[in-house]
Amino acid sequence: MVDLRSDTVTRPTPAMLEAMTSADVGDDVYGEDPSVNALEAEAAALFGKEAAVFTPTGSMANQIGLQLLVRPGEELLCDVKAHVVNFEMGAAAALGGITTRTWTVPNGRLDAALIEPMINLPNPYATTTRAIAVENTHNIGGGTVQPIEELRALRALADVYDLGLHLDGARIWNAHAATGVPFSEYGGLFDTVSVCLSKGLGAPVGSLLITDAERAARARVIRKRLGGGMRQAGFLAAAGRYALANHIDRLVEDHARAQHLARSLEPFGVCDASQVETNIVIVRIPGIAKVAAAAAEQGVRISVLGPDWGRMLTHYDVDDAGIEHAVKVVSDLVR
Amino acid sequence: MVDLRSDTVTRPTPAMLEAMTSADVGDDVYGEDPSVNALEAEAAALFGKEAAVFTPTGSMANQIGLQLLVRPGEELLCDVKAHVVNFEMGAAAALGGITTRTWTVPNGRLDAALIEPMINLPNPYATTTRAIAVENTHNIGGGTVQPIEELRALRALADVYDLGLHLDGARIWNAHAATGVPFSEYGGLFDTVSVCLSKGLGAPVGSLLITDAERAARARVIRKRLGGGMRQAGFLAAAGRYALANHIDRLVEDHARAQHLARSLEPFGVCDASQVETNIVIVRIPGIAKVAAAAAEQGVRISVLGPDWGRMLTHYDVDDAGIEHAVKVVSDLVR
Amino acid sequence: MVDLRSDTVTRPTPAMLEAMTSADVGDDVYGEDPSVNALEAEAAALFGKEAAVFTPTGSMANQIGLQLLVRPGEELLCDVKAHVVNFEMGAAAALGGITTRTWTVPNGRLDAALIEPMINLPNPYATTTRAIAVENTHNIGGGTVQPIEELRALRALADVYDLGLHLDGARIWNAHAATGVPFSEYGGLFDTVSVCLSKGLGAPVGSLLITDAERAARARVIRKRLGGGMRQAGFLAAAGRYALANHIDRLVEDHARAQHLARSLEPFGVCDASQVETNIVIVRIPGIAKVAAAAAEQGVRISVLGPDWGRMLTHYDVDDAGIEHAVKVVSDLVR
Amino acid sequence: MVDLRSDTVTRPTPAMLEAMTSADVGDDVYGEDPSVNALEAEAAALFGKEAAVFTPTGSMANQIGLQLLVRPGEELLCDVKAHVVNFEMGAAAALGGITTRTWTVPNGRLDAALIEPMINLPNPYATTTRAIAVENTHNIGGGTVQPIEELRALRALADVYDLGLHLDGARIWNAHAATGVPFSEYGGLFDTVSVCLSKGLGAPVGSLLITDAERAARARVIRKRLGGGMRQAGFLAAAGRYALANHIDRLVEDHARAQHLARSLEPFGVCDASQVETNIVIVRIPGIAKVAAAAAEQGVRISVLGPDWGRMLTHYDVDDAGIEHAVKVVSDLVR
Repeated sequence: MVDLRSDTVTRPTPAMLEAMTSADVGDDVYGEDPSVNALEAEAAALFGKEAAVFTPTGSMANQIGLQLLVRPGEELLCDVKAHVVNFEMGAAAALGGITTRTWTVPNGRLDAALIEPMINLPNPYATTTRAIAVENTHNIGGGTVQPIEELRALRALADVYDLGLHLDGARIWNAHAATGVPFSEYGGLFDTVSVCLSKGLGAPVGSLLITDAERAARARVIRKRLGGGMRQAGFLAAAGRYALANHIDRLVEDHARAQHLARSLEPFGVCDASQVETNIVIVRIPGIAKVAAAAAEQGVRISVLGPDWGRMLTHYDVDDAGIEHAVKVVSDLVR
Repeated sequence: MVDLRSDTVTRPTPAMLEAMTSADVGDDVYGEDPSVNALEAEAAALFGKEAAVFTPTGSMANQIGLQLLVRPGEELLCDVKAHVVNFEMGAAAALGGITTRTWTVPNGRLDAALIEPMINLPNPYATTTRAIAVENTHNIGGGTVQPIEELRALRALADVYDLGLHLDGARIWNAHAATGVPFSEYGGLFDTVSVCLSKGLGAPVGSLLITDAERAARARVIRKRLGGGMRQAGFLAAAGRYALANHIDRLVEDHARAQHLARSLEPFGVCDASQVETNIVIVRIPGIAKVAAAAAEQGVRISVLGPDWGRMLTHYDVDDAGIEHAVKVVSDLVR
Repeated sequence: MVDLRSDTVTRPTPAMLEAMTSADVGDDVYGEDPSVNALEAEAAALFGKEAAVFTPTGSMANQIGLQLLVRPGEELLCDVKAHVVNFEMGAAAALGGITTRTWTVPNGRLDAALIEPMINLPNPYATTTRAIAVENTHNIGGGTVQPIEELRALRALADVYDLGLHLDGARIWNAHAATGVPFSEYGGLFDTVSVCLSKGLGAPVGSLLITDAERAARARVIRKRLGGGMRQAGFLAAAGRYALANHIDRLVEDHARAQHLARSLEPFGVCDASQVETNIVIVRIPGIAKVAAAAAEQGVRISVLGPDWGRMLTHYDVDDAGIEHAVKVVSDLVR
Repeated sequence: MVDLRSDTVTRPTPAMLEAMTSADVGDDVYGEDPSVNALEAEAAALFGKEAAVFTPTGSMANQIGLQLLVRPGEELLCDVKAHVVNFEMGAAAALGGITTRTWTVPNGRLDAALIEPMINLPNPYATTTRAIAVENTHNIGGGTVQPIEELRALRALADVYDLGLHLDGARIWNAHAATGVPFSEYGGLFDTVSVCLSKGLGAPVGSLLITDAERAARARVIRKRLGGGMRQAGFLAAAGRYALANHIDRLVEDHARAQHLARSLEPFGVCDASQVETNIVIVRIPGIAKVAAAAAEQGVRISVLGPDWGRMLTHYDVDDAGIEHAVKVVSDLVR
């Protein structure tokens, strides 16, 4: 089966599994799991920040980040297609009491100039804007890499208006792989950063919220409230440490395969290869649900996101042969 | 003092005051206030709906409407400058757990075609869109009247996707006065309608949430939870009944005065009279805070909404002479 | 009709109505209603505190007080039969995210010694106790007056543990009338105090949250979020001012009538006059719903609170003849 | 180190670790992890229920259970020392909008007769009671086993009043080991059951919410909102499956060791062995923080829960020699 539905479907490599089974573990609720502690320190260092907090999912890391920056009754600005507002089951509002207003841009590519007019300054008659969230790369936008100049402009804007900035960096690894922008620059631009170990990096479970030490302490309280205070989480953390050390550099291979996939399918009118920047290929196929079902019978799985569009992602469990097979199956079906 | 900051600043006329003092009252929490009951019945009938619930403010009527249509964890779509999301202190998220995503259009004028791509259908991975809110007239948009064809298109869209529609009709009176569209047509297009008695209609306190009987019963529970279950509210309701009976037809006068005000100020570059459809004139004046302060010293008050823009509203406590005075004072200051 | 269901059912006296109609009013959301401002200042002074905020209901005043003292995720301790947790539709949790744990005492009479073992100190593994609420007089307890020594002991406890204290003083007027304890002493013992103008004092609508200046400013934001920012509320405030000036001293009459009522009904086994301290008589009558219905047909209304118990309250719309009639009707029915 | 702070501190045995590393895994958000699916099916069958949902923590399993039974604005009744209200950071109110009122009983031992008078039936003026939560064994009560007759009485009460029942069964394994009551009987008495795999059973991470099929489907949505939708969670689930198959029967050893520990310490006045029913020994030691610190230096860790009390728990990482060492160290320190 060539599973292109998501980069979350990967299974640990033997080496990663070996790292897991040999991990030293303890009770992380008590802060005593050495593998978790090491992972948190390594991730914080990578992004040039003080601290990190391990979480079972990227959604939890995102929501903790948002709750750290925005209190109930205050508001967050973000993209209309952002994961934090579309794919986390309304958690920001339901669990954090956070109002969201959204901007709309092609492919989810940040345009900082659009944001300033949206800001509500603190006043007793209006919902106060407290923070802005950016997704990099942008999932539904098609793996879009946020331009570093726009991120810098956003930081400048945030400084003027005293706003917090959250980076949904579930796929920041891919943004780095595509641009070479150092992780520490991303870390320097944002107040809170979520990263996911179980997407392109291939760990089975786990994400991190990376921030300063004071916020990290508060993050642990929020994490416990959300039900994310795990015990011997070191087995998962060990997989994450392995992934950080070994799986970042190879992401360029996923990007190359996505390019190849897109260029091969483009002649059939289902995608635009010029829009593929990382490991995500957005496909537009009328009646995609039927196509996806037929493809699955031939060993190729793709993600259906609407009546006429979907997503194909490359990751380390898909090799060149798999891509060729996917191209053949999908192109035959849409021909 | 010519107070153009808002149409909420009006004081009751002697006739309205007489209606208040002669009102028959009772305990409305027990459903026993005859004046409240009569007002609710009259308002429901006016909009062709089954029931209405009296509330102390328009914000409460709006929030009850939203909570009736959208549960915690689900989402509402609305305009990026909508009152429900900008000027109700984040209540939808903070009190109702409601996610909001927003569209952006000139003057807040509804474009139903923009909304369909925003809808998230029910699914276990995404925040489900449950309702859409429309503000008519649109306050920050400048008293914009929503085109009835767009409202009908929105209803059709809502029917296709099984979405609720809420009308923030704080100034629906002005929309009716400007277009002649019957209130019952507005009532027929929306599932929940909030109307405000203390803006253009001139009652001192009070709004209504107008809907079907089943939702109205639930509305009373939500109202009590929000702290809106008043006792002898009949004094306020009596003012509202008087306003409904006597103050709707005169709104065309406010509109004419707003037109006159806008045309008189337009030559000074502070507003665009062609955009003034009802009783709100948006003015763009660099350093408006200083101008507003200076105007106040000369007996004219205007509303400051940002560093370089604000709002002037006409209402029944402002007559022709007041408008002339305001024109003179403001034009002198911005000249 | 002799309506003993609640002291909320009173209608304004002619003198109170005259005070309302001659009131000077303005837009209270802008802080410009002179009658509201005067009422707030008078109430704050009466309790020896810095500020007060007018609200449409006692529930809203209570919930604002609780939200000022306890943040989402933290907890409040209160009596198991407290109004704030039983009769405000779950607002503390639903709107404020406030955990409640409760103690149980006879008649709702405070026993400060029971509370200390309940307190959770701040720590990253437990829900932190932040405040304690006391109801005085205690409604469901039967108009119980809280012993001033217990209130002082509670203040001492709160000081040791750095907890906030909220007084649900909807009927603090009755506690004062029964004991002579000055309002300023109550004000000195609590951080936030809610008082209701529409119960024993007889105003049609309105309550106040009385506290320090900093909290009052935050209270106005919370009030607006809850939908309690009314416009020309001065009509209601004027009734409240009249009530404060004229209706406190007469509460001893209500208490005397409640005593007479209880002593007259006690021989029929439906109440215990020794437990009646203010204007509330708890009655225990098997099948009370039927008795209440039959009494209503004879012009006497009583409140049903459970299958075999209810409540009779005295207030200024009930005179001696009314009490005699109620005694006759109820005693005939339960005989 | 003899770590008696909690039964959460255990590390996997070699056999459990072997089960983990050989586990077949998949993406559990898509419902495709065979190990998770098998664990959920086995747990549901054990309790005689239709379905189970794997969660990263017991807190999350509890909070999902509560949210399934009680909507925002409604209420839950529970013990004043219950984990769900004291040690989950206020999640029920903060995340679920759930009001809690609490009863107080010695050792947390359920007395169903106390609960009936607390129930608020559905009505538009009161917070409606929707569910009752019971903790078995009761942690802070000292590992108390809830009498099966009281649980049956509670079920009967719940049936009369149409209430939901939630079992916080983090240590239901110990209740079963102590009484022989079959898990299916517990499952039959409750609508939702949380069980924890990482306490006495010794799995590193993971809990389950066990319920009917309809609620389980909703549970997955709530789990995702809380951030508990993990990907290749099968590694953790495999440990849980091993624990279910192999670690239940051995809990009687932990109980015997706890008895021995308590009887050995009782002569020093720090505990009451007659109250020790399972694996938890509550100790009362003035200045316990100092004693705990000194004990830790001698290789014995105990849990401090207040200025003069704490907890010692037995589990599979503590053997007879460890208990003897703990007895010696603690008795020397308190002598």
